[in-house]
Amino acid sequence: IISKLPRVGTTIFTTMSTLANEHNAINLSQGFPNFPSDPKLTELVSNAMNNGYNQYAPMLGVLQLREAIAVKFHKLYATSYLPESEIVVTSGATQAIYTAISAFIGPDDEVIVFDPAYDCYKPAVTVNGGKAISIQLTHPDYHVNWNEVQNAINERTKMIIINTPQNPSGSTFSKEDMQQLERLVKDSNIIVLSDEVYEHMVYDGATHQSACLFPGLKERTLITASFGKTFHNTGWKVGYCCGPQELMKEFIKVHQFTVFCVNHPVQIALAQYLEDDTHYLYLPEFFQKKRDLFLDAISGSRFTFKPTKATYFQSVSYDAISQDGDQDFAKELTTKYGVVSIPLSVFNANQLDFKALRFCFAKTDETLLKAAEILNKI
Amino acid sequence: IISKLPRVGTTIFTTMSTLANEHNAINLSQGFPNFPSDPKLTELVSNAMNNGYNQYAPMLGVLQLREAIAVKFHKLYATSYLPESEIVVTSGATQAIYTAISAFIGPDDEVIVFDPAYDCYKPAVTVNGGKAISIQLTHPDYHVNWNEVQNAINERTKMIIINTPQNPSGSTFSKEDMQQLERLVKDSNIIVLSDEVYEHMVYDGATHQSACLFPGLKERTLITASFGKTFHNTGWKVGYCCGPQELMKEFIKVHQFTVFCVNHPVQIALAQYLEDDTHYLYLPEFFQKKRDLFLDAISGSRFTFKPTKATYFQSVSYDAISQDGDQDFAKELTTKYGVVSIPLSVFNANQLDFKALRFCFAKTDETLLKAAEILNKI
Ligand SMILES: CSCCC(=O)C(=O)O
Ligand SMILES: CSCCC(=O)C(=O)O
Repeated sequence: IISKLPRVGTTIFTTMSTLANEHNAINLSQGFPNFPSDPKLTELVSNAMNNGYNQYAPMLGVLQLREAIAVKFHKLYATSYLPESEIVVTSGATQAIYTAISAFIGPDDEVIVFDPAYDCYKPAVTVNGGKAISIQLTHPDYHVNWNEVQNAINERTKMIIINTPQNPSGSTFSKEDMQQLERLVKDSNIIVLSDEVYEHMVYDGATHQSACLFPGLKERTLITASFGKTFHNTGWKVGYCCGPQELMKEFIKVHQFTVFCVNHPVQIALAQYLEDDTHYLYLPEFFQKKRDLFLDAISGSRFTFKPTKATYFQSVSYDAISQDGDQDFAKELTTKYGVVSIPLSVFNANQLDFKALRFCFAKTDETLLKAAEILNKI
Repeated sequence: IISKLPRVGTTIFTTMSTLANEHNAINLSQGFPNFPSDPKLTELVSNAMNNGYNQYAPMLGVLQLREAIAVKFHKLYATSYLPESEIVVTSGATQAIYTAISAFIGPDDEVIVFDPAYDCYKPAVTVNGGKAISIQLTHPDYHVNWNEVQNAINERTKMIIINTPQNPSGSTFSKEDMQQLERLVKDSNIIVLSDEVYEHMVYDGATHQSACLFPGLKERTLITASFGKTFHNTGWKVGYCCGPQELMKEFIKVHQFTVFCVNHPVQIALAQYLEDDTHYLYLPEFFQKKRDLFLDAISGSRFTFKPTKATYFQSVSYDAISQDGDQDFAKELTTKYGVVSIPLSVFNANQLDFKALRFCFAKTDETLLKAAEILNKI
């Protein structure tokens, strides 16, 4: 057997969540809420099943859901996509990303990614025969040096993957960042893949700079998003991809053979639920409170940090506590102290180690305070 | 934009179901039941949601479900797979197939498929840079000439995809067919992908010849299966893939970045439901009755056929009615008469046309009789 991914092991999220369960530790690693999603939404899924929506959904997704997504874009960004041909419902953002990469990347194509990069981008490029070109965001501010991007672009550059708000760093691309990117790709054939699953989790009054807001980007960008992150049910596996028709045409060709379609009753429920914008407009405030509660509670600890600007992740430095590598330290924190985090080096080329850990604060206040109590003693 | 699938359009299943809806026609095209799935199973999904199983499932699938799958293999085939490392729950059989092909096929690899071939195999091979080599099953008996297979095998042959019971033809591989295949691949590096989604739908007292029954196959075969087909809820999108650890290791590497995991509450429900074997042992009799009802009802028509041996599809010849191509005739049958079928030529290389249509009889008796009434008048 010749492996197409010889250097890939089990994703860090499974590794750390498994370790969490084994040690009965507080799991602030994998990004999912430990509080229930809205019972109204669950009831809508049950109703959809009882009303007989149990066979294949339309291949592009339930039309009413695609229409609700289009309306959401209008409300938030005053621009939108055509439900008929520019929006496709996917089995989570992960499938949207995998399918987008599979639809466009082939042997020798180069794809620019920004490290620390969420761990599904590079393997998807590799499986399709392409080459991921890493550009390191600066530490600890996670800025992009756009000159570096410009220098990395050549005739083989087929795609640039951005992720704003960024997981794992919690940083965001500013309006100026997006304009720099727009300037760089404007007259090229480069496709942009913009992973915006944390679009609703931006704090301190800032606004999300969606790629759809920049005309020179929108015309060449596929945006991926996740209802699991937005509605607190990461286990339902529904997200979507949207972009200009010309690109979506190719996306759809691959989508139909990747999964064909997505869970039908969940789509019916989401279509109804998404129509009420109060179901997502409360999110920045809701998660900012959690961030503040957690940071307040660990402010006396020896961990250091800048409050995360976005996402439901806080990255912290443990410089004052240990000089161990972050993967070792994350393990020790789990097995010895009972708090589970994600070491950031796994997302960097050559596992570049800034001695930083990522904590997920999409947890009940009680869980966050319990974790803080332990972290304060280290 | 350079398309990776320049010759691929919209899948025939979406095309025909869309046409069905537009013409308010009886839809015997796409393979899904029009009767409800067991309300007990639906209730189990609701319970799982209400019990809080709404976050990420384990990446390989819910352990209890993988264990139930292992038990099912024991019961039916007296052999099995390890739940820990040889069974992975997927987003339907389609994702299992796509991921299996993606994990092993790269540029210049050849993959042997048997035409008429279910339409997701070849595009998945193409997207990954491989080359699909078609071997035509004979008409109207859909037999394999194993000498032809032997001659097609060369050092680039990386995979052979079999599908028994076969969709769309409704034919099966006999024990001798499986032994021929076993003999051909035994001392090679060839991987077999065995799509067995219709394993429970085999008629007239015949038994399903699963690849796992043949040791020389089992050691190199990935089997894919579908709960949607087995439990009448194709819209829930849960299936699985199993095979030897060495192959599953590579499958898992790609799976984790294709979808990461599968709908959690549905998995919890299926785990409980699958434990009771009466939930699937009734299927051969149940569907054989539907086949017989339908064939009896159209026995006076000008369509000719041999009763399908397996699957929930019946293929018929319309030679006595029209000399049009099957794609044209299927359209006419929809728009003029109101019965929707699948033309078989779309599954053959060069659209080889035997003037045959496929009808799905996974429908209520009432629907089947209504369709037959129309077909009798043509
Ligand atoms: C798909 S498991 C990882 C979930 C997540 O988005 C994260 O923890 O970063
Ligand atoms: C994925 S839609 C096609 C369903 C099916 O298996 C068939 O009709 O053959």
